[in-house]
Amino acid sequence: MTPARTLWLDERSRVLTLDQTRLPFEQVTIELDSLASCRYAISAMQVRGAPLIGAVGAYGLAFGLRHDASDEALQHDFEDLLASRPTAVNLRWALQRVADRVRPLPSTARAAAAWHEAGAICEEDVACNRAIGSHLATLLRAQAQRRDGARTGALDVLTHCNAGRLATIAYGTALAPFYLLDEIGFPVHVWVDETRPRNQGASLTAWELGQAGVAHTVIADNAGGLLMMQGRVDAVIVGCDRVAANGDVANKVGTYLKALAARAHGIPFYVACPSSTIDRSSADAAAIEIEARDARELSHVRGRLADGSSAEVQVIPDGSAAFNPAFDLTPAALVTALVTEHGPIPATSAAIAALFAEH
Amino acid sequence: MTPARTLWLDERSRVLTLDQTRLPFEQVTIELDSLASCRYAISAMQVRGAPLIGAVGAYGLAFGLRHDASDEALQHDFEDLLASRPTAVNLRWALQRVADRVRPLPSTARAAAAWHEAGAICEEDVACNRAIGSHLATLLRAQAQRRDGARTGALDVLTHCNAGRLATIAYGTALAPFYLLDEIGFPVHVWVDETRPRNQGASLTAWELGQAGVAHTVIADNAGGLLMMQGRVDAVIVGCDRVAANGDVANKVGTYLKALAARAHGIPFYVACPSSTIDRSSADAAAIEIEARDARELSHVRGRLADGSSAEVQVIPDGSAAFNPAFDLTPAALVTALVTEHGPIPATSAAIAALFAEH
Repeated sequence: MTPARTLWLDERSRVLTLDQTRLPFEQVTIELDSLASCRYAISAMQVRGAPLIGAVGAYGLAFGLRHDASDEALQHDFEDLLASRPTAVNLRWALQRVADRVRPLPSTARAAAAWHEAGAICEEDVACNRAIGSHLATLLRAQAQRRDGARTGALDVLTHCNAGRLATIAYGTALAPFYLLDEIGFPVHVWVDETRPRNQGASLTAWELGQAGVAHTVIADNAGGLLMMQGRVDAVIVGCDRVAANGDVANKVGTYLKALAARAHGIPFYVACPSSTIDRSSADAAAIEIEARDARELSHVRGRLADGSSAEVQVIPDGSAAFNPAFDLTPAALVTALVTEHGPIPATSAAIAALFAEH
Repeated sequence: MTPARTLWLDERSRVLTLDQTRLPFEQVTIELDSLASCRYAISAMQVRGAPLIGAVGAYGLAFGLRHDASDEALQHDFEDLLASRPTAVNLRWALQRVADRVRPLPSTARAAAAWHEAGAICEEDVACNRAIGSHLATLLRAQAQRRDGARTGALDVLTHCNAGRLATIAYGTALAPFYLLDEIGFPVHVWVDETRPRNQGASLTAWELGQAGVAHTVIADNAGGLLMMQGRVDAVIVGCDRVAANGDVANKVGTYLKALAARAHGIPFYVACPSSTIDRSSADAAAIEIEARDARELSHVRGRLADGSSAEVQVIPDGSAAFNPAFDLTPAALVTALVTEHGPIPATSAAIAALFAEH
């Protein structure tokens, strides 16, 4: 089934999206109608995922320009929005694109142009994701043909975190192939890593695959190594927060462990990677700063009580410290391919340079 | 600080232990005074950890023999207790030891002999753990001397699950060196894997280290790879549920991923391994059955609400399946040493055979 859009406009030109902190048990639509509401949505992780953050940032800048379209305000609003999630290279990219588009214009024309540019970013995201999904679907179908006779039934693909439609405007990146394969009736089953500490897999990926009717099973982050050893994983597909110029990948913490296991068992490890996520100013993983998030994300777990209400339970004793790095780094050598909207490429400096030279 | 005992007897010869499902927020002592209560404590995981399960099983058999000391009852009780946790080789070992001890005796002498044997199993466990801890402490002190100049301060050791005093009668196995090093003032800091889905690290290991004043930090199971890459882990120590004749290790799911990462970064990976946990009847990992536990362990998380009461929250949406393998398998080639009560040995068939030939 084709998944719904994650961000859309209403008749009054407000930006509507889901409050992802309320999923999977409550489907709450939030209305963004100011720079402040966009900034809050990003920093409070009501929206998350590089492309969706970028789109909401772009709309945030457009809202800011409606209020004050001076050069000073543009610069201030740009910095203000960027600070809401400093690790997200896609946010900087989207803000820069809107700023570059409007800066040459007279101030009276800037707000409308920014609004238009934000819309264009969204439409390009949808097209980009469909392209990535199509390339990944082709790789998965080829993988299915390589399976030995003992492996029948749906192709089993493991994913970590949520690089799905909830991380983008539509389709997602790492999950896009599952929607496209489902549309044509190709049997696929997704192992969904729970993705501690924020449980984006257990909550968001499971929810969106369930909404679209895609077969899936949630597993503890700890289980993937065993499943690979048992021959129950045909491929791994993850998204990325940032890819360095040499192909090293920053993605949700835990990605690296799955890449090591995939390599140990000869399983393809694909990174769904819009070219906008490649940060050529980072030479390699060592240049990427790792955001340490609040330890409370680890010490407290939000979920649904038996009576249907939402609650947070503490799982670590008082007095025990916790450390919560948000991302980890997967060396390029462990990546089978970076799958961009232009197709799969090796995770190498040369291939990345060639991609940018060509497009 | 020397940690408290986990299992002790009261003046009325009842077996007392902590209900570990209530930790870390409630310290509830349970009284075991029958085969049924011992069996329930094992199957409901009020007690867990191979040595503690073995000891409780042994006392369960002793209680059963008080009721009926016939050959038929002995056999029936043996099977009954064994079925409470089929993967735990140490349970079979302890039950077999008690049964072998009492079978030659007249039925009137069996209950007392079984009780005595269960006590001996406990005392030997404490001595065994102190020996393992001492060998591991020696390895860690040697590791500290090998650190390069850039690494100062406490030695950082990562552990998974709970192979601590709560898994044994006292000291634990994987955690024993931390208590022994703490007793002599050697600075050590423990990275504690949360250990989804049952959170034994976040709840039990953090609790017992905290009780004894050992420095520790809880991390998501996903974070260990990054910490190793960043050079913030000097060694990994885990326990084991079963070790095959070739040195392959069955332990809490997620162990394998840490072993892969340790190998990738040249970090020693030690398995604390009482010789009773080595199952020479399993040739290798492929012979070890992996217990799949209730998916609810993954879909629901127990913890403490803000008002101090205990509650369980659902974290996976209705309609999404979950799969919960309890253990995984770490190939012997990834193990730096099996550390038994007799000292460290390579994880090889030859070394294991020699160990059994010698002792």
